[in-house]
Amino acid sequence: MANPTAAMLVIGDEILSGRTRDSNMHHLAGELTRHGIDLKEVRMVPDERPAIVGAVRALSEAWDHVFSSGGIGPTHDDITADAIAEAFGVGIGVRDDARALLEAHYAETGLDLNEARLRMARIPDGAELIENPVSVAPGFTIGNVHVMAGVPAVFQAMLASVLPKLTGGAPLLSQSLQIMRPEGEVATPLARLARDFPDLSIGSYPFHKDGAFGTNIVIRGHDGTRVDAAMMRLAREMQS
Amino acid sequence: MANPTAAMLVIGDEILSGRTRDSNMHHLAGELTRHGIDLKEVRMVPDERPAIVGAVRALSEAWDHVFSSGGIGPTHDDITADAIAEAFGVGIGVRDDARALLEAHYAETGLDLNEARLRMARIPDGAELIENPVSVAPGFTIGNVHVMAGVPAVFQAMLASVLPKLTGGAPLLSQSLQIMRPEGEVATPLARLARDFPDLSIGSYPFHKDGAFGTNIVIRGHDGTRVDAAMMRLAREMQS
Repeated sequence: MANPTAAMLVIGDEILSGRTRDSNMHHLAGELTRHGIDLKEVRMVPDERPAIVGAVRALSEAWDHVFSSGGIGPTHDDITADAIAEAFGVGIGVRDDARALLEAHYAETGLDLNEARLRMARIPDGAELIENPVSVAPGFTIGNVHVMAGVPAVFQAMLASVLPKLTGGAPLLSQSLQIMRPEGEVATPLARLARDFPDLSIGSYPFHKDGAFGTNIVIRGHDGTRVDAAMMRLAREMQS
Repeated sequence: MANPTAAMLVIGDEILSGRTRDSNMHHLAGELTRHGIDLKEVRMVPDERPAIVGAVRALSEAWDHVFSSGGIGPTHDDITADAIAEAFGVGIGVRDDARALLEAHYAETGLDLNEARLRMARIPDGAELIENPVSVAPGFTIGNVHVMAGVPAVFQAMLASVLPKLTGGAPLLSQSLQIMRPEGEVATPLARLARDFPDLSIGSYPFHKDGAFGTNIVIRGHDGTRVDAAMMRLAREMQS
């Protein structure tokens, strides 16, 4: 059976302007691969409501799961929750269980749960909260969309609480072989290998080190015996 | 006048599987900001022809420029050029000027210009070549799409030869202020500031250092006097 599929939506002006370098996409990609969910598409959009709504709808229809990062803090540019509610055509308001989490946290830290912070308890109707063990303000899941914070430590913690609940498939297995020949000389045998193993993904990544050209070849697939068979044939062909 | 807009398309299984961390997006974002072109959307797709064709068409219609990275090497999974030709409904074949570049390079290095390497001279009809001072095999521009390599050193060199030819707008100016108060306490004045300066982008980025919570506030815009005015008001309000 094919693995479940997923997309990611990265939300934030600061990513698109180059001020901040996104690191959540790379983290998510690795975690999904280990969990047996195939990441098929990533989109990055600014903090603009129509852009978020359009991307959420397109990705939510096309793939089994959507993971978003960014735009769920207390400030005016944190509009993700409202955009998600619009994308799903549901209402949104401050929810009691989310407010209780924030109240307990701010009581403990002696800070004021003001109007701005209370925005973080705005949750689309029908959503389920995602725990935030780092800074309390929760994420949420609605439909097949998992809405998480952009701060990497919080994103990672939220993902760790979401992933175990999702049904994964076979993890993607990979084997790699480093060959000290330039990519252009291994391309023909690789193309034959890809033709004979259509169920595997066979990638080649050229490198240049100490004046010599080499190629890393990576064979990926969900069936370990097929990956083994392809790698054995490749190693044999590259020796000759 | 509004700045020109742009999108980026990152192509490659290795990015989506988490094996490789993309760095071209962050580089492009910074260069475009300096050049006065607004990056509005990024998509990342696997080495699959329908995914590339669909994304190229959507982005090319929506934005002034599209910059792609990845999938133009000599191996079987390098299908970007063919997918771009399909997206634009044009033919593709080995082009004499591109072949001449490769012939000269391989003659000099003593390597064989075999069939696989010759694939790198396949250029969609009507495209203009993009110079590759690093490893010779060219990129190309067709319509409003600039097709470049995924290897970061090559991507950066190609971008450096494309960008000066494009008409930019006003570079995005930014000023930032670090405040040692948590984000939830500055959210209300920030929202008022954003309302009074609708032409500026005002972002806040919380941090946690040495047990204290702080916020970096960044004001961005194309008109320096407006950015100055907003920053002066912010600084005044944050003192009181």
